[in-house]
Amino acid sequence: MLNNTSALEALAIGIDIGGTGTKFGIVDRVGNVLFSSEISTRKHTDVNDFIDELHTELSKLIDNVGGIGRIKGIGVGAPNGNFYTGTIEYAPNLPWKGIIPLARMMEDKFKIPVVLTNDANAAAIGEMMYGAAQGMKDFIMITLGTGVGSGIVANGKLVYGHDGFAGELGHTTIIPNGRLHEGTGKRGSLESYASATGVRLTTLEILEKSTEPSSLRSVPSDQIDSKKVYEAAIAGDTVAKQIFESTGTILGAALANFVMFSSPEAIILFGGLTKAGDLILKPTRESMEANLIQIFQNKVKILVSHLKESDAAILGASALAWDLK
Amino acid sequence: MLNNTSALEALAIGIDIGGTGTKFGIVDRVGNVLFSSEISTRKHTDVNDFIDELHTELSKLIDNVGGIGRIKGIGVGAPNGNFYTGTIEYAPNLPWKGIIPLARMMEDKFKIPVVLTNDANAAAIGEMMYGAAQGMKDFIMITLGTGVGSGIVANGKLVYGHDGFAGELGHTTIIPNGRLHEGTGKRGSLESYASATGVRLTTLEILEKSTEPSSLRSVPSDQIDSKKVYEAAIAGDTVAKQIFESTGTILGAALANFVMFSSPEAIILFGGLTKAGDLILKPTRESMEANLIQIFQNKVKILVSHLKESDAAILGASALAWDLK
Repeated sequence: MLNNTSALEALAIGIDIGGTGTKFGIVDRVGNVLFSSEISTRKHTDVNDFIDELHTELSKLIDNVGGIGRIKGIGVGAPNGNFYTGTIEYAPNLPWKGIIPLARMMEDKFKIPVVLTNDANAAAIGEMMYGAAQGMKDFIMITLGTGVGSGIVANGKLVYGHDGFAGELGHTTIIPNGRLHEGTGKRGSLESYASATGVRLTTLEILEKSTEPSSLRSVPSDQIDSKKVYEAAIAGDTVAKQIFESTGTILGAALANFVMFSSPEAIILFGGLTKAGDLILKPTRESMEANLIQIFQNKVKILVSHLKESDAAILGASALAWDLK
Repeated sequence: MLNNTSALEALAIGIDIGGTGTKFGIVDRVGNVLFSSEISTRKHTDVNDFIDELHTELSKLIDNVGGIGRIKGIGVGAPNGNFYTGTIEYAPNLPWKGIIPLARMMEDKFKIPVVLTNDANAAAIGEMMYGAAQGMKDFIMITLGTGVGSGIVANGKLVYGHDGFAGELGHTTIIPNGRLHEGTGKRGSLESYASATGVRLTTLEILEKSTEPSSLRSVPSDQIDSKKVYEAAIAGDTVAKQIFESTGTILGAALANFVMFSSPEAIILFGGLTKAGDLILKPTRESMEANLIQIFQNKVKILVSHLKESDAAILGASALAWDLK
């Protein structure tokens, strides 16, 4: 089997662990996702069960390409994933608490090399190699999903920081003493507003505070989510539009701070909230420009990832595997 | 003359342009500041007059070391100084407005190569080569002077950004809709609180708002400055202590945001306000830790530069000159 397959092109596995679901795929050198699938992250309170299911599901894909002998390695992107140590540490949006030595646990299970990084760092690598950031040496990737992740590239390299944890921009404080983040216990972070979770909370708040008519009032409160708000806004609902306006205004103020830190050529947005298009992008751009000092104004592009939904992180994670020895 | 001196060790000139004064010195390869002096920045509303006085004063120092033939080049640190273009652009704390092609203007005057960068970037290079950041690959330099400057090192390299303007952390918004910054027209920036100017304004505000007794009430309001507040605090004045407490709390919250961006090994503080010691450092550290999510807590050192006052920026600026071709 190994002899048959070793003549074939080597492949890599990319895995993107998110707060809700985990996506994974088998990727070739030029960035084609040959096979991909997804499992739930949230349902596995024990990380061992999670790895077991991941192994079962990935094995099916691996069989499709001729067996594990073709796979050079596995790259994993995960919230609070640490490139240096291969551990996931105190991730507020994952069901596993404390320090999880995920790379070593997965190597024991899969018997091939595993490298781990922050999920948004993986997405940034994906954008740099195959997406909107090709050719850029300085950019910031922001993922607007269940949470807010970020990957920062400066001087053409991922910024990992001294301990591998750089790029937690979702946890920076934007509104002092603002909304409580249940996962971190901190107040007023970007993530508590500019994530799918944040949009849901903003919606509930605005509906409660105002008496303005809105189609969202007929949605049971436990079913309010960013998709419902988007649909209402597209249909012309004023309250729904106001929710994206408010979210974009906060996001833009945060982006201005990030620009004044590393002066990127572009900020690349990725994830569910970007589907709202100009409903969120217009207030984001306006608020960013309004908060920038003159030398930074009208220079920084805000781009939306054009990689297929979920592919950026899978591609980026898989790219890590090519560098494995 | 050139023949006589060319056998001697080459030297570099470092210049640190600040909002109030401009310091300059002649530096050898190992970081000894052989001769140094200072002129006023503020009094020259025309940059040509500034360059003329700088040339006159520097020529005296150059004569001391045997003439211009010994000088490899000039490195300049200035607010909003751009490493890529050699220009100072729209610096809110300098008397010269618009875009000033300072490096070229100085080359025309001095007839030797001139390289320019942000003043705080220059200080960061000084700390990395000769100071508290020796051996560090990831750190942030914050200068707390008339304004707040910053230089960011990641992966062992200065972060310049795509346009050379990275590291304007003093202009990041810490308190939305907060205090107006006269130079930028923006509200709530770190600089509007955690600079000498900011401490003065905080003092005036606190004295006006409260009726608490304070020795500062006997100081005419136009003479209130951070030095006076420090002296009062050291003498036990409760209001003065509260001013540093408040300043440190804001600074610490800002530092937490910066840590969650680039995860530095240390933050190195430099400049007038650091003379207040634990009066400002203690609340700064406490506020930083309180605003950090768990993975960053109790990891990041806050260090005060131990380079002689003004030397870090001169040394760092001079270091730029060694890389000149």
